[in-house]
Amino acid sequence: SRSIDLAVIPGDGIGQEVVAEGLKVLSAVLPQDVKLETKEFDFGARRYHATGETLTEADLDALKKHDAILLGAIGDPSVPSGVLERGFLLKLRFAFDHHVNLRPSKLLPGVETPLKGEPAIDFVVVREGTEGPYTGNGGTIRKGTEHEVATEVSVNTAFGVERVVRDAFARAQARPRKKLALIHKNNVLTFAGHLWTNIFNKVAEEFPEVTTEYMHVDAATIYLVTQPERFDVIVTDNLFGDIITDLAAAVSGGIGVAASGNINPSGDFPSMFEPVHGSAPDIAGQGKADPTATVLSVALLLRHLGYESEAARIEDAVTVDLAERTGKPARSTSEIGDALAVRVAG
Amino acid sequence: SRSIDLAVIPGDGIGQEVVAEGLKVLSAVLPQDVKLETKEFDFGARRYHATGETLTEADLDALKKHDAILLGAIGDPSVPSGVLERGFLLKLRFAFDHHVNLRPSKLLPGVETPLKGEPAIDFVVVREGTEGPYTGNGGTIRKGTEHEVATEVSVNTAFGVERVVRDAFARAQARPRKKLALIHKNNVLTFAGHLWTNIFNKVAEEFPEVTTEYMHVDAATIYLVTQPERFDVIVTDNLFGDIITDLAAAVSGGIGVAASGNINPSGDFPSMFEPVHGSAPDIAGQGKADPTATVLSVALLLRHLGYESEAARIEDAVTVDLAERTGKPARSTSEIGDALAVRVAG
Ligand SMILES: CC(C)[C@H](C(=O)O)[C@@H](O)C(=O)O
Ligand SMILES: CC(C)[C@H](C(=O)O)[C@@H](O)C(=O)O
Repeated sequence: SRSIDLAVIPGDGIGQEVVAEGLKVLSAVLPQDVKLETKEFDFGARRYHATGETLTEADLDALKKHDAILLGAIGDPSVPSGVLERGFLLKLRFAFDHHVNLRPSKLLPGVETPLKGEPAIDFVVVREGTEGPYTGNGGTIRKGTEHEVATEVSVNTAFGVERVVRDAFARAQARPRKKLALIHKNNVLTFAGHLWTNIFNKVAEEFPEVTTEYMHVDAATIYLVTQPERFDVIVTDNLFGDIITDLAAAVSGGIGVAASGNINPSGDFPSMFEPVHGSAPDIAGQGKADPTATVLSVALLLRHLGYESEAARIEDAVTVDLAERTGKPARSTSEIGDALAVRVAG
Repeated sequence: SRSIDLAVIPGDGIGQEVVAEGLKVLSAVLPQDVKLETKEFDFGARRYHATGETLTEADLDALKKHDAILLGAIGDPSVPSGVLERGFLLKLRFAFDHHVNLRPSKLLPGVETPLKGEPAIDFVVVREGTEGPYTGNGGTIRKGTEHEVATEVSVNTAFGVERVVRDAFARAQARPRKKLALIHKNNVLTFAGHLWTNIFNKVAEEFPEVTTEYMHVDAATIYLVTQPERFDVIVTDNLFGDIITDLAAAVSGGIGVAASGNINPSGDFPSMFEPVHGSAPDIAGQGKADPTATVLSVALLLRHLGYESEAARIEDAVTVDLAERTGKPARSTSEIGDALAVRVAG
């Protein structure tokens, strides 16, 4: 008999509320014969304040035993900027080698976009997750003086770039339009840019059916608001991916519906799934948060674990739920979760 | 009697055409007593192909003698990516210490935006121009092998950050809303982020009337499409500035109307003004390019040289011209230039 052993990290702010709904929908969608086990972890601001810890080696060992991780949100204004980001979120991505950061953007019927003309947006960004300017390389000299110099080093390796580019080509190959865009800034960041561009062109030869294009990141932001329908699959660097996926979320319904996966395709470590939105402390605990992005992250999680039809059922349920929202009064976090749970079970 | 001694770099593609109109409007707006002298330089793809040169020391000496520089566009697909960007555009910015890269965004009446609701967009981005990931620091080892490592180093100095932050505060102070946003990614790029944030907070104490906020660059892209009216002045790093100003241009009428200045406020070297758009080789030589961004760059140039009323006259003329376009047949590059020249003279 099958089983899913899930590590659950509700985290801070609205994280608790949205994760509860994600789990509700997960339980509802799974067939009887699949045994779901969950173990909750208390990472985030509270633990940091209580113990000074963000993520220890023992924590990593404990997380490692699970099949996958579901995360709500980590971050709180009471913690200095960077402490939980570098000490938890990025530490986990690096420790578990989550090099494929998958962020789909689809404008679903009935969902509001700030763009005119309701463009047919349906693309996925494959963001590199373990290199680039996110490595924490760099440093500061003469801190706090008028002669301070601070550096950040973007590290890019053939190994790291090739594996994520290859993943993106495979995803493009599997989609009807079979298009892949590389986004970088190779006219200015020439060292990293040449590495990315050369590897992209080399791997392209193995995927003759995939139509490719290259685009500078600045130009890409223009296309994302003027012609977002042109994109199918995008592959890009860690920092550029961070920036354009927030923009992509904004044009395709907002971060309330944007899901993401931090994936290690090798399976050596569990992959982690989370909504793109943060902890939104201003609305935490009020039942106002939309759990849709978390529920869609559960769909990505299921697909990653091989439960394709269950993933599709969740996505279909969300599509119908969103389409039926127009003109109706706002529902609470748990009301939305309940409605989705009923739909996926039905 | 007053005089303006201008270096003119038409450059590649549509550069020639739009610069001609910029100069036409400049001549028309200047009072009789101001003597305008222009000297044309042949930088760009043609010179590179003919001589292998992009920008020599002798060129820099020659440019240096002028009061300001007007540039059309540099770049052509026949030149490998990065050669003209690093060898000309960035070389010039660094050589002349153009550390204030000024990019206003204003959605003028009658101008189309891809955003719903015709938001009241009117802000200016002060982008740092001589540091960050643009310094060309970094390198490659084991090039072309499976063990290649390519790095890019973002260099940030207290000196470089403080002068541009100070410039931005002064600009915010001089505007009615007196708001300044720092955009960075200080939760991930903690070394550079702390330097920027600390200096920003320190300088803020000298400008108690200016309301400040901090925003991560990813979140900023969301606000630029959902609430662009919230911005007044933005100060940011070189790379983030590159990315968000293209997005800003896209939401406020497109790069056809986006002007920019590469300014050295000390006056030790001439400042350079240019449209944000590139050389658009696909439409070059056809009289299709809109010279408006170049004409607005001429306004920034005049303001920089102290010709405030002339700058305002150009901006007013452009405002009227844009407002009257709706429903009319498209005009050629020179027809638009002629119309603007008549208006500013009138
Ligand atoms: C919180 C931060 C570390 C993170 C990132 O920059 O990757 C977030 O913005 C994201 O996109 O997941
Ligand atoms: C052409 C390139 C070097 C340049 C930049 O990245 O600064 C351009 O994109 C710009 O914004 O002026």
